[in-house]
Amino acid sequence: MTGQPHPYVPRDMELKDFVPGFLSQSTIVGVYAISALLVVSVIWVFSGRSGKFSKLNRVLMCWWAFTGLTHIILEGYFVFSPEFYKVKTPHFLAEVWKEYSKGDSRYAGRDSGIVSVEGITAVFEGPASLLAVYAIATGKSYSYILQFAISLGQLYGTFVYYITALLDGDDFSASPFFYYAYYIFANFWWILIPSLIAMHCWKKICTAVKLQGSQKKTKTR
Amino acid sequence: MTGQPHPYVPRDMELKDFVPGFLSQSTIVGVYAISALLVVSVIWVFSGRSGKFSKLNRVLMCWWAFTGLTHIILEGYFVFSPEFYKVKTPHFLAEVWKEYSKGDSRYAGRDSGIVSVEGITAVFEGPASLLAVYAIATGKSYSYILQFAISLGQLYGTFVYYITALLDGDDFSASPFFYYAYYIFANFWWILIPSLIAMHCWKKICTAVKLQGSQKKTKTR
Repeated sequence: MTGQPHPYVPRDMELKDFVPGFLSQSTIVGVYAISALLVVSVIWVFSGRSGKFSKLNRVLMCWWAFTGLTHIILEGYFVFSPEFYKVKTPHFLAEVWKEYSKGDSRYAGRDSGIVSVEGITAVFEGPASLLAVYAIATGKSYSYILQFAISLGQLYGTFVYYITALLDGDDFSASPFFYYAYYIFANFWWILIPSLIAMHCWKKICTAVKLQGSQKKTKTR
Repeated sequence: MTGQPHPYVPRDMELKDFVPGFLSQSTIVGVYAISALLVVSVIWVFSGRSGKFSKLNRVLMCWWAFTGLTHIILEGYFVFSPEFYKVKTPHFLAEVWKEYSKGDSRYAGRDSGIVSVEGITAVFEGPASLLAVYAIATGKSYSYILQFAISLGQLYGTFVYYITALLDGDDFSASPFFYYAYYIFANFWWILIPSLIAMHCWKKICTAVKLQGSQKKTKTR
């Protein structure tokens, strides 16, 4: 085996030519948090200027911009960079996945379930999330069904993510800290928020369909 | 290794205590086809009696009953019977999966991606499909969004199914016949039909939302 020993679990996972991360955990999380805050702030400020958006829709636009860019940039990089763990420079995106793999080594190990879910997320859900920002901003009629579709995709992906881990022994974290901080806490938001949005859109759509149905009845009377 | 040699590919996959299938391919496919035809006929005849359903909605009810029962009975059995390949009697559901594994040995091999997707399909999408029959029959306002949600779930599952196979080498079929007949042809319908239904529901929902939006505008004028 060439390369340096990796910090991941299972310890005997083979990672030829592995190069350890260069940046500290606080740097990686900090850059991500600040970038996210920047995106959210820009959307929040611009969406507030016109005065035509409800607070809820402004929050939703912030979410879709944040999650869409995360899907496209972070997860997109992972999907199309199978050898990120060999990167010899402090490349931020490679560092993210070198670090995240401490919480779930299936990323470094290129588990096919993970790559499939991340692929669907990056290629379909990422661009669709940015489309959702546009759809809300311009009041498109497909706004609710699009948000519902992406949220359901995110939920499905997170379900597959956890179920495959459980079936394969749920032992891919380098320590309980990484297990709870990365594997549980970081993903938790992609269960909570899509669930809330899916329920919100479900209700909105049912109301619209019900209204249409009652009008048809009135007309035929 | 105990048990008899299995007919699956990869040949070196270990299946302790494997017992070959008892029923012929034509018997297995025949029983499934006749059962499906029976379900579809019953729904078609009963939905036609009242005269209040469109042909499209009658077809949709047939589809949801067929796919729902397939998810719950066939796929449900697979999910909760990890040792189906050891079954020593001609149990129909065990036979189905002993036979289908010739097209995709990941079923007999209990691949975690397959079990995750089939688990979500059997537990959530199966009952939801039967709910869709009821929703169409009783004209519920959630009918479209429910059908859309299940279709999207079916599409997501089929995508994960094929992408994981490709990533893992796409070599799980005992012969080209089984590859095309089981792995491609049988699953193809769960791409085609959910796509059509999802597009249909998307349009219906957009129309309803647009109508509601235009009425709001009229009111505020």
